[in-house]
Amino acid sequence: MVVKVYGPDYANPKRVIVCLIEKEIEFETVHVDGFKGEHKQPEYLKLQPFGLLPVIQDGDYTLYESRAILRYYAEKYKDQGTDLLGKTLEERGLVEQWLEVEAHNYYPPIYNLVMNILVSPLLGLPSDPKVIQESEEKLGKVLDIYEERLSKTKYLAGDFFSLADLSHLPFTHYLMNQMKKEYMFRERKHVSAWWDDISNRPSWKKVLQLYKYPI
Amino acid sequence: MVVKVYGPDYANPKRVIVCLIEKEIEFETVHVDGFKGEHKQPEYLKLQPFGLLPVIQDGDYTLYESRAILRYYAEKYKDQGTDLLGKTLEERGLVEQWLEVEAHNYYPPIYNLVMNILVSPLLGLPSDPKVIQESEEKLGKVLDIYEERLSKTKYLAGDFFSLADLSHLPFTHYLMNQMKKEYMFRERKHVSAWWDDISNRPSWKKVLQLYKYPI
Repeated sequence: MVVKVYGPDYANPKRVIVCLIEKEIEFETVHVDGFKGEHKQPEYLKLQPFGLLPVIQDGDYTLYESRAILRYYAEKYKDQGTDLLGKTLEERGLVEQWLEVEAHNYYPPIYNLVMNILVSPLLGLPSDPKVIQESEEKLGKVLDIYEERLSKTKYLAGDFFSLADLSHLPFTHYLMNQMKKEYMFRERKHVSAWWDDISNRPSWKKVLQLYKYPI
Repeated sequence: MVVKVYGPDYANPKRVIVCLIEKEIEFETVHVDGFKGEHKQPEYLKLQPFGLLPVIQDGDYTLYESRAILRYYAEKYKDQGTDLLGKTLEERGLVEQWLEVEAHNYYPPIYNLVMNILVSPLLGLPSDPKVIQESEEKLGKVLDIYEERLSKTKYLAGDFFSLADLSHLPFTHYLMNQMKKEYMFRERKHVSAWWDDISNRPSWKKVLQLYKYPI
């Protein structure tokens, strides 16, 4: 069964796609244009009532929320492609911990930065300099904690690449490229090396090559 | 091994404790007084570098982020106490989906309401009426989607109680009691019945009986 991914050009769907590539799972994509509001149309809301991207369909199974989709495929195909969950329950626990840190500590400030620096100008909306400044400060404090962690282990959950690292790729890519905030990572030695490692994975390079819209 | 839970009086630690009770896991608690800033002290930051509650210690294993802890114990003791993950990978996927909805759609507005209506007065800080109004509107829209979902299945992930439902208990308790916003649930028939069901579980009543500080 080929997995159908609705998105796929935005950051949250890309989180799912890089996982499917790591797990060597066949997929096809359905383009949903967020800039035209297609994710708020009745047909799409039947699949995802909150009007957010992505959704997957796998036969008659429908699932949304990108990090839930990651967990589903990482577990379903545990022995295929890259193992993204760790080998023991305790390693899996740490994968879950850092996946939650990504969702609750890292994502809110980087999301605000992406929206205000990249997306608002595309939509012709004003940016809020106060939000940009506060978000950069918050993200900096999170990266200080990452720096400490990554001085002890190669990846966030331990010495193995996992969903916790992978989940950082799409939004951080904007920060390191289009947003010209590379210095936030480069001034932190271990965080910088971690980014070079995870962003050079063939799976992520493939995602960037396949999906260039809208930024 | 008895699980040590740091908290335990606040809403996020209570999410963990109700899970441990459902899973029939022995635990003890270490009181951390957030109102005195004990969660920002160096000793505590060694356990949880972001200065947030809760943390658990289980022998020499330390884990933080409440929803990561839920997943760890629900999986580790799959066959003990209440099954909270569903029976199949597809059910587990839906548990994960609704746990993410709780974290990303439900939690942000209810957290803002709790902070502005309950916590700020306790700290002698001003409340923001605009944030209260916007958060109530956002939460109402989320509850409309829950109402639709709960008209089809008894619980969020399906016809079985799971982590996805359990995760809503601590913050919603404030909404339904101390905050006098019960009408938000009562004007939605299925959401109202769902709350009566999950909040009457002996596990949750036990949590309320054990931990009354600070509200």
